[in-house]
Amino acid sequence: MRLDEAIGTLRSMRRLKPDAVAEADLRAIVEAATRAPSGGNIQNWAFIVITDAKQRRKMGEIYREVGTDYLAQFFGGAPDPISMEPQTHRLYESSRHLVEHFGEAPALIAACMRGKFPSKPESAAAFYGSIYPAVQNMLLAARTRGLGTTLTTLHAHRQEAVQAILGLPESVHVICVIPIGYPEGKWGAPRRRPAADVTHWDRWGTRRTES
Amino acid sequence: MRLDEAIGTLRSMRRLKPDAVAEADLRAIVEAATRAPSGGNIQNWAFIVITDAKQRRKMGEIYREVGTDYLAQFFGGAPDPISMEPQTHRLYESSRHLVEHFGEAPALIAACMRGKFPSKPESAAAFYGSIYPAVQNMLLAARTRGLGTTLTTLHAHRQEAVQAILGLPESVHVICVIPIGYPEGKWGAPRRRPAADVTHWDRWGTRRTES
Repeated sequence: MRLDEAIGTLRSMRRLKPDAVAEADLRAIVEAATRAPSGGNIQNWAFIVITDAKQRRKMGEIYREVGTDYLAQFFGGAPDPISMEPQTHRLYESSRHLVEHFGEAPALIAACMRGKFPSKPESAAAFYGSIYPAVQNMLLAARTRGLGTTLTTLHAHRQEAVQAILGLPESVHVICVIPIGYPEGKWGAPRRRPAADVTHWDRWGTRRTES
Repeated sequence: MRLDEAIGTLRSMRRLKPDAVAEADLRAIVEAATRAPSGGNIQNWAFIVITDAKQRRKMGEIYREVGTDYLAQFFGGAPDPISMEPQTHRLYESSRHLVEHFGEAPALIAACMRGKFPSKPESAAAFYGSIYPAVQNMLLAARTRGLGTTLTTLHAHRQEAVQAILGLPESVHVICVIPIGYPEGKWGAPRRRPAADVTHWDRWGTRRTES
């Protein structure tokens, strides 16, 4: 698949079929991750590929716990579908589905980093900039294989619990977890603000109309 | 270009030709950024595309200032090329080149985020996970156009100075800056650890040989 098609049609797939994902596809997805840049080419990343049903269930329990609170916070206590924008309501429904079924995704990949969390924003820019490019490569590599993904970060709220489940050394932290499977939904352009609205030329606020 | 070729041959290009980059290419690169996921689809990003020579020079001065310290820290005070591993020496030389010539790249894109810096690692995972996927899309979109890039984060150390140069509101922070131009070097597989070395199956330390 062409890069521009992969980028242009990648959207979060929160509803996944239970069908297994081939090990070769999971390997290819991690392989794509390891091609990404990292600060000083340090490659302090580690990828835990989880297909074991018990392990997935445990990871799903954490997601449900943190996600239930998150949904209440993000969308309000008991959101009224009538008063919600249809797009917001769809996001709410699919997010709630993910909260309830996270561990049922046929595969999960936990993207981890060695070394302690950065304490200052400037070092955080380098730290997270050394893992998320790899994560985006995984989402795109999955897309070209017809596999749906969602980038989720709620496990980062429960480091100790995740370390216990995955047997991670104390110096290894989970940054995000990606459920992977064949999607229930259709691929298509994600809903985004036009690029022109978020582009500034040379200085903040300087717009330039397309020539 | 196919996604796997783009991912497989993308490497940091720290030496760039002075030839101008077409505005259409810069627009396409930002367009690719805006297709990326972000937490809750909030899209709190902003992209400052800098081609003005004075603005580039000012950004380059900051990079030289922070980068000189960084090089000394990362590679040691006055590194001896004889005792350095050849690969490390090449990285040192190209990094030093970038420190000295950052502002000469024909275009820079500063990837920024609205909202205050997260104070806790768990919110940092969501915050940075809402900008770096967009950044990786830009590196890949540039690659397919034959344009070289490097992901740099040193400007994050000088928020106030960057805000002054780019006229950013106080609530907007620079996360990373990408110099863009036609590369002096050749494309090719980047030097990386094998995926098998950083892949664990179901639990930390569980390896699985390819079947």
